[in-house]
Amino acid sequence: MEQKIPYKIYLEESDIPRQWYNMRADMKNKPAPLLNPGTLQPLSAEELAPVFCEELVQQELDDTTPYIDIPEEILGFYKMYRPSPLMRAYRLEEALGTPAKIYYKFEGNNTSGSHKLNSAIAQAYYAKKQGLMGVTTETGAGQWGTALSMACAYFGLDCKVYMVKVSYEQKPFRREVMRTYGASVTPSPSDTTNVGQKILAEHPNTTGSLGCAISEAVEVATTNEGYRYVLGSVLSQVVLHQSVIGLETKAAFDKIGQKPDIIIGCAGGGSNLGGLIAPFMGQKLRDEADYRIVAVEPASCPSFTRGRYAYDFCDTGMICPLAKMYTLGSSFIPSPNHAGGLRFHGMSTILSQLYDDKLMEAVAVEQTSVFDAATQFARIEGILPAPESSHAIRVAIDEALKCKETGEDKTILFGLTGTGYFDMVAYEKYNDGVMDDYIPTDEDLAPGFAALPKV
Amino acid sequence: MEQKIPYKIYLEESDIPRQWYNMRADMKNKPAPLLNPGTLQPLSAEELAPVFCEELVQQELDDTTPYIDIPEEILGFYKMYRPSPLMRAYRLEEALGTPAKIYYKFEGNNTSGSHKLNSAIAQAYYAKKQGLMGVTTETGAGQWGTALSMACAYFGLDCKVYMVKVSYEQKPFRREVMRTYGASVTPSPSDTTNVGQKILAEHPNTTGSLGCAISEAVEVATTNEGYRYVLGSVLSQVVLHQSVIGLETKAAFDKIGQKPDIIIGCAGGGSNLGGLIAPFMGQKLRDEADYRIVAVEPASCPSFTRGRYAYDFCDTGMICPLAKMYTLGSSFIPSPNHAGGLRFHGMSTILSQLYDDKLMEAVAVEQTSVFDAATQFARIEGILPAPESSHAIRVAIDEALKCKETGEDKTILFGLTGTGYFDMVAYEKYNDGVMDDYIPTDEDLAPGFAALPKV
Repeated sequence: MEQKIPYKIYLEESDIPRQWYNMRADMKNKPAPLLNPGTLQPLSAEELAPVFCEELVQQELDDTTPYIDIPEEILGFYKMYRPSPLMRAYRLEEALGTPAKIYYKFEGNNTSGSHKLNSAIAQAYYAKKQGLMGVTTETGAGQWGTALSMACAYFGLDCKVYMVKVSYEQKPFRREVMRTYGASVTPSPSDTTNVGQKILAEHPNTTGSLGCAISEAVEVATTNEGYRYVLGSVLSQVVLHQSVIGLETKAAFDKIGQKPDIIIGCAGGGSNLGGLIAPFMGQKLRDEADYRIVAVEPASCPSFTRGRYAYDFCDTGMICPLAKMYTLGSSFIPSPNHAGGLRFHGMSTILSQLYDDKLMEAVAVEQTSVFDAATQFARIEGILPAPESSHAIRVAIDEALKCKETGEDKTILFGLTGTGYFDMVAYEKYNDGVMDDYIPTDEDLAPGFAALPKV
Repeated sequence: MEQKIPYKIYLEESDIPRQWYNMRADMKNKPAPLLNPGTLQPLSAEELAPVFCEELVQQELDDTTPYIDIPEEILGFYKMYRPSPLMRAYRLEEALGTPAKIYYKFEGNNTSGSHKLNSAIAQAYYAKKQGLMGVTTETGAGQWGTALSMACAYFGLDCKVYMVKVSYEQKPFRREVMRTYGASVTPSPSDTTNVGQKILAEHPNTTGSLGCAISEAVEVATTNEGYRYVLGSVLSQVVLHQSVIGLETKAAFDKIGQKPDIIIGCAGGGSNLGGLIAPFMGQKLRDEADYRIVAVEPASCPSFTRGRYAYDFCDTGMICPLAKMYTLGSSFIPSPNHAGGLRFHGMSTILSQLYDDKLMEAVAVEQTSVFDAATQFARIEGILPAPESSHAIRVAIDEALKCKETGEDKTILFGLTGTGYFDMVAYEKYNDGVMDDYIPTDEDLAPGFAALPKV
């Protein structure tokens, strides 16, 4: 008789992975290297060292070592909120009337409310190990800033967050969570940096942008002794740290003797999706198993589905390294879409290469249909999902409904990256029926492509 | 060699209790019965039936049956978020330098953000089973309303929440969570009820009160066919449902071969504390084991430590049954203390009797010291606690520091009832150093005592 699978498949503390898995080691076509924006030559470790911590530079550049030990100090932190549960969505299956089996890996059961903490704690640890005073970063919606604040509080590091001014003013609760964890939060642009002063002189009434906040955070990191800059997505080191998500997921599936047919995740910069799929993609790359892997992005910011695979700047300020990635152009400004964490013009270089090699698919979904799925999921499964995560829910439901039509009992896995407690303004718009579904026209996208750097 | 206890002690799905434990069955001195406010006679099941669901009336009146089966439908819901983890606070112990062992039962890992869901789902189930259309309730801060909305969404029941107007306007995010789960949320006083219209005519600019919201919710329940009124604390049925917290906690302690010496919980209406201590108090009542049990209340609303044990109304509108409890008088208006869930003038009749019988202690703590503890805990243990829960953290830390002085390695258990994501206005006041520590004088308390009904 088949063993009844529980709603929540918990692993033991001893099942937390002790090594991160580096997908790049198994990729035949490696992700293209980061380029120096001045020389257009691949960046060396020495060039990256003033900006990033030493060990993180090594991880960023290492595309051959398959497994990298997770230091004990990071494991000690992971134990406070990991392993995260793999959930069987029995109720959702029943409500949809689908023969499909739906599972989701839930990363929202920690105070940062998302998977961001997995990399924040790693980056804070290496900064501490290097003897630094603190780190700087930017934050838009505030999810990454919150995670980093928690990680810095744990290791006693100073944490300076530059928060896009409009978010600082409109999202005071996120700001207060960061302050509660001891971070200093500065609305950007500010008069604490040269770049901020310059922007304020030119545009005294600006509400800020992510590009500006990055510029300020990088300036503070590179001009203050004992500080480095850290980033919550896009970078290969972040995808590496996030592999704990996928490694735990695979361990839980192994424990119940199942395997997913389809793996679905939302994709902004790609850190959560890259982490979720890591060990599965590894099997695929080594021809040991096959999975259908689907990236879901907002139709308002369609990097994979409508972007170009080209070298581009990671920031709108064009001071950061060039990365080869699916991009809409660093000058592309996404609409004020509520899925804040998915509003990035580019994509992880790892995922970009995998997508270009047709090892994964991508689909773009519209906002109202995403919130339809979010609300349906919340009422049925209880968890109030983050708007970002709800992109994956939308496609998981769509795939389950296809199974209903065909009668197939596929096993669908999706990543539920976080909770929506700080996104109620977006839910309010949905509840009031005033949510917009902006999709950029080809004309809207043209300037971003035209401004791509000539490499 | 002693087995290393993990940070999170998880039980299996099969370890979820299948029966609630009714402390009253083991009490030699039973809680005093509820009285009809008109006749001053004990209320019969028939008199309660127009207000409450039938089976809940039975549970409210049953002080002899020790174990009551949890229906399968409720267990099915519990499985989606229970068992909740018992956490070992290794990091907090280390930071305090105490030989004490600190454990906490964490009830915040569900979207309602607190233990309230344990009773909400039970009350919604019995309403559904009785064939009702829906339920009505009041909410202040919104925690209970959120839990009830989730429970009603699960069973497809209509849910009408009367939310104190000032909270409705100042806490729009809580309101939107409830709406997302399909509840109708009406600011109280409203023109949808007779009592609301009357109050609005007399006080057109009132921002509402809990007493008024209760009156409106009860009116709607009793004048609309197919509706009943439900309540999130104080009642003995609620303490019964919340016994799942304590039963799981005891099972987890048994699993690791430990037992607590001191059990600490915050106390507003008493449902969380009553639930946490239930099986331990049961052992104490049966002379099988002894525990030190400590209720923690805000100094601004000190029902146990400065109240009187007397019959009183449960609502400020004086339409509800009389209960014998530790009370500050139903006319006592707590200061705008941020621990919204602890701002109740009275206390569970069960806990009141146990306290009067000296089977438990109580201590009152001031708000700033509570937020000191909350912030310390957040930075060390990662979880951002609710202000209510932080009252228990304060006393747990104090007890652990006493152990540091005496060198005793006591085992301290406290209830971490919920998360503070929707309480950032209070954290902001603390972060800005503008939190107040109001303590009522004896003169402030005198009118409430003078207005106690003569029974």
